[in-house]
Amino acid sequence: MALMRDPDTDINNIGIYRHEVHENNMLGVQFSETADANVIWKKYETRGQPCPVAIIIGHHPGFFIGSLAFSSMDTDELEVAGAILQEAVPTVKCKTIPLDVPANAEIILECETIPGERRKEAPFGEYPGTYGPQRNNPVLEIKAITRRKNAFYQNAFVGHADNLLLSGIIRTTFIERTVKIACPNVREIAIPRSGRFRFFCFISIKKMMEGEAKQVAMAAFVADPFLKFVIVVDEDVDVYNDTEVLHAISVRVRADHDIFMVPYAKGSPLDPASYDPAGGSHLVTKTGIDATRKDNYPDEIYVPGNEEIDLTEFIPGYTK
Amino acid sequence: MALMRDPDTDINNIGIYRHEVHENNMLGVQFSETADANVIWKKYETRGQPCPVAIIIGHHPGFFIGSLAFSSMDTDELEVAGAILQEAVPTVKCKTIPLDVPANAEIILECETIPGERRKEAPFGEYPGTYGPQRNNPVLEIKAITRRKNAFYQNAFVGHADNLLLSGIIRTTFIERTVKIACPNVREIAIPRSGRFRFFCFISIKKMMEGEAKQVAMAAFVADPFLKFVIVVDEDVDVYNDTEVLHAISVRVRADHDIFMVPYAKGSPLDPASYDPAGGSHLVTKTGIDATRKDNYPDEIYVPGNEEIDLTEFIPGYTK
Amino acid sequence: MALMRDPDTDINNIGIYRHEVHENNMLGVQFSETADANVIWKKYETRGQPCPVAIIIGHHPGFFIGSLAFSSMDTDELEVAGAILQEAVPTVKCKTIPLDVPANAEIILECETIPGERRKEAPFGEYPGTYGPQRNNPVLEIKAITRRKNAFYQNAFVGHADNLLLSGIIRTTFIERTVKIACPNVREIAIPRSGRFRFFCFISIKKMMEGEAKQVAMAAFVADPFLKFVIVVDEDVDVYNDTEVLHAISVRVRADHDIFMVPYAKGSPLDPASYDPAGGSHLVTKTGIDATRKDNYPDEIYVPGNEEIDLTEFIPGYTK
Amino acid sequence: MALMRDPDTDINNIGIYRHEVHENNMLGVQFSETADANVIWKKYETRGQPCPVAIIIGHHPGFFIGSLAFSSMDTDELEVAGAILQEAVPTVKCKTIPLDVPANAEIILECETIPGERRKEAPFGEYPGTYGPQRNNPVLEIKAITRRKNAFYQNAFVGHADNLLLSGIIRTTFIERTVKIACPNVREIAIPRSGRFRFFCFISIKKMMEGEAKQVAMAAFVADPFLKFVIVVDEDVDVYNDTEVLHAISVRVRADHDIFMVPYAKGSPLDPASYDPAGGSHLVTKTGIDATRKDNYPDEIYVPGNEEIDLTEFIPGYTK
Amino acid sequence: MALMRDPDTDINNIGIYRHEVHENNMLGVQFSETADANVIWKKYETRGQPCPVAIIIGHHPGFFIGSLAFSSMDTDELEVAGAILQEAVPTVKCKTIPLDVPANAEIILECETIPGERRKEAPFGEYPGTYGPQRNNPVLEIKAITRRKNAFYQNAFVGHADNLLLSGIIRTTFIERTVKIACPNVREIAIPRSGRFRFFCFISIKKMMEGEAKQVAMAAFVADPFLKFVIVVDEDVDVYNDTEVLHAISVRVRADHDIFMVPYAKGSPLDPASYDPAGGSHLVTKTGIDATRKDNYPDEIYVPGNEEIDLTEFIPGYTK
Amino acid sequence: MALMRDPDTDINNIGIYRHEVHENNMLGVQFSETADANVIWKKYETRGQPCPVAIIIGHHPGFFIGSLAFSSMDTDELEVAGAILQEAVPTVKCKTIPLDVPANAEIILECETIPGERRKEAPFGEYPGTYGPQRNNPVLEIKAITRRKNAFYQNAFVGHADNLLLSGIIRTTFIERTVKIACPNVREIAIPRSGRFRFFCFISIKKMMEGEAKQVAMAAFVADPFLKFVIVVDEDVDVYNDTEVLHAISVRVRADHDIFMVPYAKGSPLDPASYDPAGGSHLVTKTGIDATRKDNYPDEIYVPGNEEIDLTEFIPGYTK
Repeated sequence: MALMRDPDTDINNIGIYRHEVHENNMLGVQFSETADANVIWKKYETRGQPCPVAIIIGHHPGFFIGSLAFSSMDTDELEVAGAILQEAVPTVKCKTIPLDVPANAEIILECETIPGERRKEAPFGEYPGTYGPQRNNPVLEIKAITRRKNAFYQNAFVGHADNLLLSGIIRTTFIERTVKIACPNVREIAIPRSGRFRFFCFISIKKMMEGEAKQVAMAAFVADPFLKFVIVVDEDVDVYNDTEVLHAISVRVRADHDIFMVPYAKGSPLDPASYDPAGGSHLVTKTGIDATRKDNYPDEIYVPGNEEIDLTEFIPGYTK
Repeated sequence: MALMRDPDTDINNIGIYRHEVHENNMLGVQFSETADANVIWKKYETRGQPCPVAIIIGHHPGFFIGSLAFSSMDTDELEVAGAILQEAVPTVKCKTIPLDVPANAEIILECETIPGERRKEAPFGEYPGTYGPQRNNPVLEIKAITRRKNAFYQNAFVGHADNLLLSGIIRTTFIERTVKIACPNVREIAIPRSGRFRFFCFISIKKMMEGEAKQVAMAAFVADPFLKFVIVVDEDVDVYNDTEVLHAISVRVRADHDIFMVPYAKGSPLDPASYDPAGGSHLVTKTGIDATRKDNYPDEIYVPGNEEIDLTEFIPGYTK
Repeated sequence: MALMRDPDTDINNIGIYRHEVHENNMLGVQFSETADANVIWKKYETRGQPCPVAIIIGHHPGFFIGSLAFSSMDTDELEVAGAILQEAVPTVKCKTIPLDVPANAEIILECETIPGERRKEAPFGEYPGTYGPQRNNPVLEIKAITRRKNAFYQNAFVGHADNLLLSGIIRTTFIERTVKIACPNVREIAIPRSGRFRFFCFISIKKMMEGEAKQVAMAAFVADPFLKFVIVVDEDVDVYNDTEVLHAISVRVRADHDIFMVPYAKGSPLDPASYDPAGGSHLVTKTGIDATRKDNYPDEIYVPGNEEIDLTEFIPGYTK
Repeated sequence: MALMRDPDTDINNIGIYRHEVHENNMLGVQFSETADANVIWKKYETRGQPCPVAIIIGHHPGFFIGSLAFSSMDTDELEVAGAILQEAVPTVKCKTIPLDVPANAEIILECETIPGERRKEAPFGEYPGTYGPQRNNPVLEIKAITRRKNAFYQNAFVGHADNLLLSGIIRTTFIERTVKIACPNVREIAIPRSGRFRFFCFISIKKMMEGEAKQVAMAAFVADPFLKFVIVVDEDVDVYNDTEVLHAISVRVRADHDIFMVPYAKGSPLDPASYDPAGGSHLVTKTGIDATRKDNYPDEIYVPGNEEIDLTEFIPGYTK
Repeated sequence: MALMRDPDTDINNIGIYRHEVHENNMLGVQFSETADANVIWKKYETRGQPCPVAIIIGHHPGFFIGSLAFSSMDTDELEVAGAILQEAVPTVKCKTIPLDVPANAEIILECETIPGERRKEAPFGEYPGTYGPQRNNPVLEIKAITRRKNAFYQNAFVGHADNLLLSGIIRTTFIERTVKIACPNVREIAIPRSGRFRFFCFISIKKMMEGEAKQVAMAAFVADPFLKFVIVVDEDVDVYNDTEVLHAISVRVRADHDIFMVPYAKGSPLDPASYDPAGGSHLVTKTGIDATRKDNYPDEIYVPGNEEIDLTEFIPGYTK
Repeated sequence: MALMRDPDTDINNIGIYRHEVHENNMLGVQFSETADANVIWKKYETRGQPCPVAIIIGHHPGFFIGSLAFSSMDTDELEVAGAILQEAVPTVKCKTIPLDVPANAEIILECETIPGERRKEAPFGEYPGTYGPQRNNPVLEIKAITRRKNAFYQNAFVGHADNLLLSGIIRTTFIERTVKIACPNVREIAIPRSGRFRFFCFISIKKMMEGEAKQVAMAAFVADPFLKFVIVVDEDVDVYNDTEVLHAISVRVRADHDIFMVPYAKGSPLDPASYDPAGGSHLVTKTGIDATRKDNYPDEIYVPGNEEIDLTEFIPGYTK
């Protein structure tokens, strides 16, 4: 987890990047083209200056979730983390670089980029569970290492659930804001594990009129460009349950009517099913599915009096 | 469960049909246009003769599964049931109609159709969980009721899991036979609950060449016309796990390349997402999805030595 | 222009509705299913109470634009109008109904709906320039008419530019907010007259990566469901100039690559090109067009020194 | 503008080609593969003979328009130019090559190709406003230059309106001939500036039956292979007004019903949105749009008596 | 075969229409909406005048072919028939109506329409081999019958080859003229029996560049709106041989690349595969197929010396 | 024709492969990746052993047809050949390799592969009539040649009818088995010459319900992956007659309703219209066509009494 500061606005930006250990005091770093960190680093690079980067190892999970918020560059992510933790994050000045870092982190690596320097990095495992293409990345020189007493070394295993889950949680809040523009009656939004917390989004709505579900699907794609499949269901479907979502597709979808595709759309450059995975293409085909009941959907089976039956009267020991 | 006999071949046919109670000794019956029973009944009807039908209530589950086999009219389904039960089904002659019925069934209703007679039946709940359109159906007159001592009344609740599951199991064996024509290396075939044991089929294969998965999907559609979505995955995916199947879609599918649709295809006349559900149209859009890794799929993350780690050494009390 | 008040929150809502004169003191009114007024009116109707409605005839144009803002029901549109006018709108109590109306409007009709009453309305000309289907609409009883001295009667001619333009202006602000989610570098947004200020949206962006334009198009569809065609262009194209937008399509679009369609999508129930215009269907096909230069776009002609030429030196009397 | 003569038929052919100045008396020339000049030049080349080419600089605009006519090789384009000018073009014999050139041209360059000789030409700006790929082109040797007294040097600036407009005008006459086969009631045909006088064609018709507009669109594509978008409108739409044409699309088109595409179709090798612009591919996707009112189009707003109102009675000084 | 005369221009028009015998001297007649005869008849009908119609029974086949030419209303079809027969058609005045009819026809029915009169006609067999929908058609009163001595009664059996072939022949000449606009090197054009001489067109070309074949297909659709499938092949394929055309499709077509469809296009109101055959819809889907070799087509097997082998030397009695 | 024996099961496998003569006693051989022979050869190769191959030149046609059966590796193709010939194939032991070969073949080449050895083979003409890409193939060493007295040298000319026809015949039996799963009422199945006995399949069925034809088309694709176009017709159409099949398409197909495509599907690596013929891609687009009459097909012309007319009474010498 790396903390950087915009040289123009002094606003802090935090993100998780991965590092290859080049030498004892040299780390590679991949500032993804889609990350705010990339913008900040380029500001220093253009000025021929080293960019200070503080790598924070080990902190409270709420700190991580807050720092990973989808926020604009106008937002100080240290403050978002504080909001999640429900108290301001106490900070301390770094010893060798002009940054303030969380006071109760386990370990801090104080680093600077070396302007103009790039090194080849061997392929890394990435969040889709696959290796991305080799890259020519900037290099961080470690200026100092500070740590708490008996510090824990906390690691996130890229491409595994511990790592993926972190960003899945925070994504839904942002998606919800955009989806509400399309449909005021949105009920639940899930970014499920089955889509690696990135590629799928399941949304339940109380539909007011036909066609709303496709608006909702587009809204989710707009909010989160990594999404490839958005499935919209009625409010009686539990979006946290893959089986229920699939069931809605099985009975409520006529594929040529209810599915739309957007080819050559913006996705993730690490997507293993992009138009050119080896070349790092970020162009993918997006698929929106309206799995709500349509106007002509037949009535569903309903057993009158059903809800008044108390199974404990019939089955000894039955608990709901 | 109704047993009938082909008047030309004397071969027994068994199926589950639903009955509306018209009067004390009068039952409606729906012989679906796609059922063999329909052919047998029409043979009698054309000759102006009553068609004997023995309704069997209550038997061993294996008997039910066997009787529901997808078999041609040349197969005596009493024998298939015997095969599943691993012993011949003992039978006994009916008292009023010329049929032999299982000796150890709970209750037998001996009935005959009334030639030419039809009655409107109120909408019934059907397997998709919805009400089908009203129909004009033939009528059974109950000639006699025989039963075991202390007979149980066994009922199947149409559209609920106890009823749906029965046919899901037996379908896979038939599908497998056809899928093997397309791909010798088929691994597992699931007809999952998420598709109401009718609309979805998940198949894992060891793929030998690109394009095989689409052949496999077509084979499943051929074997079982009720299927609407067939998803083909690699052998490392557990087809009995909806989440794993969805995961394969999320990382291994480029929708415009890997999905094909067949519009105006033959499905079920009760499909609530057909081209005209109210009119009982059986035309649907079928969708095949190749969710296997493609030739250009990147390598997946692999941690060497991973399989030699014994977590019980690190986590006290850990069990796999 | 009708002012109503939410009986639960006392928040004012203003909109333009059209009225058929039934009798001297009876007016029809069409509260479109998509309007907030419909929600307010239904609250009264459910309680069996008359819904007070003050019809405001004649005011400052800024008042109209503000009142037509796309805002949620939580927003008092009288305040939005005030914001546009840059001073609070002075109000005065109605004489016969519990509403406050703008003090300097020309004419006020104080009305109440008659609970349960509906009357057929002859087809009206609507904003697309066509007649909509006949409807069964609620009825307003006029309780009192108040007016300024020498009051002007101001009318908006439905389906003509004076009427259409009003809502075109205010739409772009709302669309911009959503489009910025998809693309931070949005430049200009036009809702042009060529699309009747409803159906087209032209957006210019400074594109950072391929595929962004399709995200932008989806965002515009999400923000304004009446839009049917969204065309996204590079920042060198003037979106207020139809000819420039068309030119971008002519040289920068490969139709099978750059156009996507969303069929059976939510549009306007008055759309004359919907799936069933006579039946008042609001389902339409939406079309997004990425008319930006693609990665493989050739270099454009550039004449070095061109910008240093001063044509006034060569052509007497030339002005730029 | 180059005049050549078919060595088999002695028929004159005139076209505009662009030249790179290699040396004082050496010019490159690009005879496009789609031009008649290419056929003529190849006839000489196959025989190992120099091909005489007279470059005409400066003449009456009517002469240019006539020479650019889409005509078969059987037509002497000098005569077409004469038809436009409404008098025979007076000619004079060249001094060094066996051709007759217009007597009142400003400057004539008498040239011959050098058989077998080819030179690389740096990328040129082309009519789409972009640079085309580098080419290996034949070479002209200038044998003599003749000119009028005080001759003007007239130049056409490739890719700019003065140059583009020339061929736009003459294209419509040819397109009209073909479109009339599809629809006798064609009204107006425009090749607008918004499509660089090449890529768009707007056609108004008095439609007799549904489907006619798509026939018309195909006819335009047939007549002029450079066209990529043909939009067909009703006769009340002014095809010389981009805004009116867009307006017709906005209210009269349901995209999935009224638009057809022809992928991998024959277009221009310089098209910047072809399947491979860098490789000079001439394959493009063509799009035909039927923007006429369909059978189910609602009635349009009509104000009876409207045409009898004389606004000059109401608005002092009003002129239509 | 009916001869009529345009009341404005006195130009003769000839066509084949079918007649229902209502009574002894009353015939129904169907002037198809797409026929010139319909225009002529309506001119009389508008003026409230009876329209004279001479029905010609029995003549030389060349006379029939000429009369069925696809020609504009400016062309006197009696003259076209003369051109085919290579001598002017001798005519004779009718006795009761102001028309001139071929002197050597077998039988002439001199008729007039009864203005305003319409009668229901029972469904007729039509050229597609199917019955068309019932129609309300005008009525002809027979004024006189004249005939040659020993006149033959010649009949054309609608929907059978003798009738269909007649128009198939004459169509190709017209199609060729339009196709040449798209491709100068068109070789052969067939309107085969397999398409009932109406629905298919097979065209061979010497292709100069990729994409030309689709231009050719569009040209054929433009020339003859009844065509539904146009298949374009290389010049080595015999278009008069269905097997060779199919063979070209089998080896030279990649369906998603080489086939284009135009849905909701103008076809024949009698087409049994239109969007609504019972309703007499003339809207159909047109399909163009480029079955030429593509740029990446592999070399074909060639046996050097093959053409020098004289099989008669090896196989006694062999003839080519 | 090469006979090999599975080293694990001792089951004989026979196929036709093509050989390049490298030297006097050295032949190249192409065991296609899709052939069982490839599996057998690889078993020897993996063990580092020479694989014995007996090349059989000249035998009864029935022997060839039997040997080319689409059968699994569990089937001894020598026995299939015997079944076709209706007597066991008499065999004789080879002299140098451990195989039994047909006793009455004309010539036998006894060969062994050389483990690990590969040689480039010049492009060969293949069954599609085109040259396939160059390959690196295994090599056979000829150990002995045995032959009958006055042995004939029989050759099959690859890519010509004598060679193609052989596999066309045997394919239909296998396809029929799979098609019957989809439709019990299949009538006739043709693999016509027009599709080089590989790419087309024409199937007639007695259709029981709409949609069945698409099931049938999928079944044929499943059974034979080389098929690219499957056309399904009603039982009144003769599938052995290309013209009749085309005719069914012309009157019974609405292309957007009745045609489905499966892109990127498994075909033949030699297909000249694959996605990459030069690269030997086996991915093709498959096209299924339902050319049966649809539910809304109009009645066809029927002349009552037609079948009772005996033309011999009217036309002297007429024979049917």
